[in-house]
Amino acid sequence: MPKKIRLGILGGGGDSLIGVLHRVASFINDNYQITGAVFNPDFEVNKAFAEEVDVPLNRIYKDFDTLITEEMKLPKEERIQVCSVLTPNFLHFPMAKKLLDNGFHVICEKPMTTTLEEAKVLQQAHEKAGTVFALTHTYTGYPMVRQMREMIKAGVLGKIHKVDARYYQGWINTIIHDKEKRNSVWRLDPKKAGISSCMGDIGVHAFNMVEYTTGLQVKSVLCDFNYLYEDNQMDVDGTVLIRMGAHVKGVIRGSQVATGEENGLAIAIYGEKGAFRWEQEKPNFLYKMSDTEPTQVYKPGHPYNSKLSLDGTKLPAGHPEGIFDSMANIYLGVAKAIRGEKYNNGEFPTMTDGVRGMDFIEATVKSHKDGNTWVTLED
Amino acid sequence: MPKKIRLGILGGGGDSLIGVLHRVASFINDNYQITGAVFNPDFEVNKAFAEEVDVPLNRIYKDFDTLITEEMKLPKEERIQVCSVLTPNFLHFPMAKKLLDNGFHVICEKPMTTTLEEAKVLQQAHEKAGTVFALTHTYTGYPMVRQMREMIKAGVLGKIHKVDARYYQGWINTIIHDKEKRNSVWRLDPKKAGISSCMGDIGVHAFNMVEYTTGLQVKSVLCDFNYLYEDNQMDVDGTVLIRMGAHVKGVIRGSQVATGEENGLAIAIYGEKGAFRWEQEKPNFLYKMSDTEPTQVYKPGHPYNSKLSLDGTKLPAGHPEGIFDSMANIYLGVAKAIRGEKYNNGEFPTMTDGVRGMDFIEATVKSHKDGNTWVTLED
Amino acid sequence: MPKKIRLGILGGGGDSLIGVLHRVASFINDNYQITGAVFNPDFEVNKAFAEEVDVPLNRIYKDFDTLITEEMKLPKEERIQVCSVLTPNFLHFPMAKKLLDNGFHVICEKPMTTTLEEAKVLQQAHEKAGTVFALTHTYTGYPMVRQMREMIKAGVLGKIHKVDARYYQGWINTIIHDKEKRNSVWRLDPKKAGISSCMGDIGVHAFNMVEYTTGLQVKSVLCDFNYLYEDNQMDVDGTVLIRMGAHVKGVIRGSQVATGEENGLAIAIYGEKGAFRWEQEKPNFLYKMSDTEPTQVYKPGHPYNSKLSLDGTKLPAGHPEGIFDSMANIYLGVAKAIRGEKYNNGEFPTMTDGVRGMDFIEATVKSHKDGNTWVTLED
Amino acid sequence: MPKKIRLGILGGGGDSLIGVLHRVASFINDNYQITGAVFNPDFEVNKAFAEEVDVPLNRIYKDFDTLITEEMKLPKEERIQVCSVLTPNFLHFPMAKKLLDNGFHVICEKPMTTTLEEAKVLQQAHEKAGTVFALTHTYTGYPMVRQMREMIKAGVLGKIHKVDARYYQGWINTIIHDKEKRNSVWRLDPKKAGISSCMGDIGVHAFNMVEYTTGLQVKSVLCDFNYLYEDNQMDVDGTVLIRMGAHVKGVIRGSQVATGEENGLAIAIYGEKGAFRWEQEKPNFLYKMSDTEPTQVYKPGHPYNSKLSLDGTKLPAGHPEGIFDSMANIYLGVAKAIRGEKYNNGEFPTMTDGVRGMDFIEATVKSHKDGNTWVTLED
Repeated sequence: MPKKIRLGILGGGGDSLIGVLHRVASFINDNYQITGAVFNPDFEVNKAFAEEVDVPLNRIYKDFDTLITEEMKLPKEERIQVCSVLTPNFLHFPMAKKLLDNGFHVICEKPMTTTLEEAKVLQQAHEKAGTVFALTHTYTGYPMVRQMREMIKAGVLGKIHKVDARYYQGWINTIIHDKEKRNSVWRLDPKKAGISSCMGDIGVHAFNMVEYTTGLQVKSVLCDFNYLYEDNQMDVDGTVLIRMGAHVKGVIRGSQVATGEENGLAIAIYGEKGAFRWEQEKPNFLYKMSDTEPTQVYKPGHPYNSKLSLDGTKLPAGHPEGIFDSMANIYLGVAKAIRGEKYNNGEFPTMTDGVRGMDFIEATVKSHKDGNTWVTLED
Repeated sequence: MPKKIRLGILGGGGDSLIGVLHRVASFINDNYQITGAVFNPDFEVNKAFAEEVDVPLNRIYKDFDTLITEEMKLPKEERIQVCSVLTPNFLHFPMAKKLLDNGFHVICEKPMTTTLEEAKVLQQAHEKAGTVFALTHTYTGYPMVRQMREMIKAGVLGKIHKVDARYYQGWINTIIHDKEKRNSVWRLDPKKAGISSCMGDIGVHAFNMVEYTTGLQVKSVLCDFNYLYEDNQMDVDGTVLIRMGAHVKGVIRGSQVATGEENGLAIAIYGEKGAFRWEQEKPNFLYKMSDTEPTQVYKPGHPYNSKLSLDGTKLPAGHPEGIFDSMANIYLGVAKAIRGEKYNNGEFPTMTDGVRGMDFIEATVKSHKDGNTWVTLED
Repeated sequence: MPKKIRLGILGGGGDSLIGVLHRVASFINDNYQITGAVFNPDFEVNKAFAEEVDVPLNRIYKDFDTLITEEMKLPKEERIQVCSVLTPNFLHFPMAKKLLDNGFHVICEKPMTTTLEEAKVLQQAHEKAGTVFALTHTYTGYPMVRQMREMIKAGVLGKIHKVDARYYQGWINTIIHDKEKRNSVWRLDPKKAGISSCMGDIGVHAFNMVEYTTGLQVKSVLCDFNYLYEDNQMDVDGTVLIRMGAHVKGVIRGSQVATGEENGLAIAIYGEKGAFRWEQEKPNFLYKMSDTEPTQVYKPGHPYNSKLSLDGTKLPAGHPEGIFDSMANIYLGVAKAIRGEKYNNGEFPTMTDGVRGMDFIEATVKSHKDGNTWVTLED
Repeated sequence: MPKKIRLGILGGGGDSLIGVLHRVASFINDNYQITGAVFNPDFEVNKAFAEEVDVPLNRIYKDFDTLITEEMKLPKEERIQVCSVLTPNFLHFPMAKKLLDNGFHVICEKPMTTTLEEAKVLQQAHEKAGTVFALTHTYTGYPMVRQMREMIKAGVLGKIHKVDARYYQGWINTIIHDKEKRNSVWRLDPKKAGISSCMGDIGVHAFNMVEYTTGLQVKSVLCDFNYLYEDNQMDVDGTVLIRMGAHVKGVIRGSQVATGEENGLAIAIYGEKGAFRWEQEKPNFLYKMSDTEPTQVYKPGHPYNSKLSLDGTKLPAGHPEGIFDSMANIYLGVAKAIRGEKYNNGEFPTMTDGVRGMDFIEATVKSHKDGNTWVTLED
């Protein structure tokens, strides 16, 4: 395995969810070393957090500009190679641009910028820089999403003629129906959150999924939003008719008021010879449909999958996504116990579980060997 | 957040799956620092792997005994605090015992030992040591498994009267039906793999799940194994009748020849007032059943869950388990690109995706504002 | 139970699927007696079919006009009371109108007419007649669809703000991609099939479902069709944006080229306080969602259901819809056997099954009573 | 189509569920005519019910013996050909025997007899009679159950090595936990209900399913029951280990206290080359599993199904089982309306629905043709 890549982090300190997600992701395949960071605009907070997550303090900077200045003084083989931009949306553009202009690789949270105009400027900066730029449309990382893409590319569906994608959430219900809340929350303030709430935050994921999996481009859109209340200025729901070429049509549906939905991203792609259906909340199940054959259920990790899909599977077939999290919870419980917090209340299996397990195994063997008799376990 | 815990690793080097799983799990909640290890019995391989995963070489030891000897020389505040034992099964007992005898905390892979007798010896060592000992029955780390346990403890099901658990896999089919394979593979050789294959490897997980969730003990068992072939000495399938108290009965079903099953661990618990059903392959869905009310579907991260369950959820409601893996795949693609490998073939979203996303968002807003007209995206 | 209603049938002879469906439906609740019919325009075929299905030949007429003339001569207490109109689409209007004008009740297949203009004329005839007119939007007969309607009426969802319905089929794929087929089949000929294929045939079911369940009216629509080929004149796919009132919006999606879909009618209704999801292919499962509580799964036949729903359930909770069909298959096998066709090849359980069943039951009792020993069954 | 078979009915009068089920099943494929009956031991009730369901009164008999005597006097071409025995369990044997002895065909409800001894006597009578005898293990009538059987017979799974079947219900919970109820209900009184409750009533269905689908015989059983209370004499739960031949093993699980379960009949069959999973509550979905290929989902009515399966499907692919029931509910509503009961409250679609449907279709066409503009529907 090659040497680790030096990673810088901008934002994502404290209990930021996106911060955890990026740090863990950078760790999982042993490719990155967090080398420097500006986790927080408050320098003290920044440093305290760096200690927590074991990033050397001498590479913790008081602000982004200082990070650039100081890192540029370092020899190239010590300098941060790639920066993850996890700051508030309006900072994505200036930070990413300056990083590119200085020759850094960039991993950028979504949305990439706040306007298309900025996006194009960034694109030019990227072309000039020639470094790597990645936007974290996370959902394209699922093994079964990749499998869809590769099978479509291989022509398994024939000519595609219809696409139907949705991203439904319900969480804005807890805000939108209360006049005071909806008039005060930053998410529904166009000045702070940009031109679009529902479409900008989640509809764009569905859009990206459509283009990623089909390999086709959306050519034009026709859209209807729902604001729910006269005094609300941001779309919280919308349906977008899309056209992707001659006789290739579809729909993208987004909602933040789809009551009870959590992260309901789903896609269906219909072609002359077959179709795919996939839902994010059951990401391991990819349905390949046909008018004449039984539906097939593809799952990760099997040799029948494409290389791109298998590259994204770390464990053998049948280990559920989420097993890392489950094991991490065991480690979390142990950490609490080692630190002397309350222990043995269901947070991890103990010695007793081990003894009982061995007792069980030996008892089953004895029962079978003795001709299927009852064998008593010890208390 | 407190200082990180010093973690030692025994085994789990190279492309060991269990090694990846433990390292990632130790990282996820920012509690551990891998401080020392014997990843591999071959010292050179051991050191090479340590470099890859960034463990300081001065704490990489040539074997387990050396690790103990050298670590014990260090002052307590520098010494490894807890060791993860990921070595072949027969080494779990001697290593865990020596670790406990020297005052270390231990995280031990399953099975804890190879016999019940060893298990009891280890239990005594543990009692004497007074340190933390955790056995990685990973599946009890799932938030919804914890939720079951807590709700049962709170009396939601009333008196439990029936339990039905299974762990079905199919992978031994690829070995067992070939005479040469089944007579040569170590997994089916009792000298190397212990007294039980199916029950020892996976049945015991179902057993642990039963006791973990119900809070009850299995009192006695009656078991029937299937060896499939006369010349096979290891159970590859078995059904265990269990008794858990007066009129509390159940069944544990295990198989390694359940064709097409992957990691089919599932449990159903029936009580006077309600019941639970849960399946590992869809770990986010917990079904609470009743004879008189609609079935309820519990999912992780909601405030209606218990503290123990919520402690095991790192992201807000509706983010699927597995999202870490998905993001990790994006980071993996970026790493390849930074290292100059082939790039932009679906491994991560690029600048182009970013520009198109902004184009999409602006186009939807324009379409809506212009009275639901078609708006063309740029190529 | 009151006396049976005298039912006349127009069309639906031979192996017409819609004919079977209506006859069985009329039988299931013991309310109807088929008293007269014009099953087929060919009088001989008509009479032969009447013999098969046991309708008295003296009330089998050579054509629809004769049926009206002759029935009107009969005293009211003998006359057909209600007629099911199962003829080709363009005959629905003239037949239904004449029936209403003569004081008959009418059960009419969908589409009611071929134009809105005809529909309004029929509506006037109906108002004048004062008899019962029913249109067979069959899917509103499902117990769980009725349950949705009643719960929404009772305010369970609060104010509705979004509706999403679809009806996806794939069967036209087998025609549309072949130029000769698509230019010759009557379904795609506007002269024979009316102004719309996808929306007229199935989209309208989704539309009806939306209005039936929500109790709201669709106020306006914006629609985009896909014809797939330049030389095809009928919509085979379409998406309809709908507005149902101030800030109540939604989408109806229809397709006959959604590859691999069968009868994919589904609806989701989102309100301030809750939401519903239902799919026709699993008609017994109604999902009631919430932002704060676990999803609830409603099923037919439980006392927690509304009267309207329970009125539509004939068997106790947990007997699946389709059990009638299953039992009917047993009866079908027996009929073949009685008629001397080949027998005992899996079409119905036989004496042998009965003996073995009793053997099994007695053996299980003996095994348990003898202390869980093995008991051998007879060959 | 041949002439209808003359069917007699014993029992099943009033609102008997099994009565409805058999009458509808006999009607569905147009093979039977109910010619005579003893619906009820009370002659007046019997006659009143016969009027309701249109069976000629001259063939309604005061008791079973009279039915036999009188029918035997009729010429063979008028005589009842087959009798459905729907009486209480203890009458199955004497009635079926006398019917067979007199040369009738018999359709008999389950359990066939109350003891194995009776079953064998009946078997001899059947062999002597040479008529058709069918036992209504209804679940073998499902198209997908038949598909399993035929594919297994064709060798698709290779050698079968494991079978796992269950039938779980929860309804006895409402009785068993109340001492007075459990000591008074006839279902738990061995004198009235026979030697077994759970295994006799539903376990035997699972047993039948196992033998029906695999084509193998259960050779021996080992069983453990749960009675739940000391004062209860009938099994309400049980697990049965089964052996079906050399190295072919399995388990049958039955329960009437599996809280919240409705009619949870399910089967999994594992063989060398593949496996099947099927659940009664979603009877249209048959899962064909493999260790190396994606799981396939078989559904009824497709040409890829076997003849036996297709013979049991009345409608084209994708029409859900249960559509008969749904349509029947529409007819039920219409009947109420014709009889002057309250009307237009959701029981069937009306003229208004028809007009609105046409309005919708025309509006969608207009919207599309006018360039995707909004079109208003009439109120």
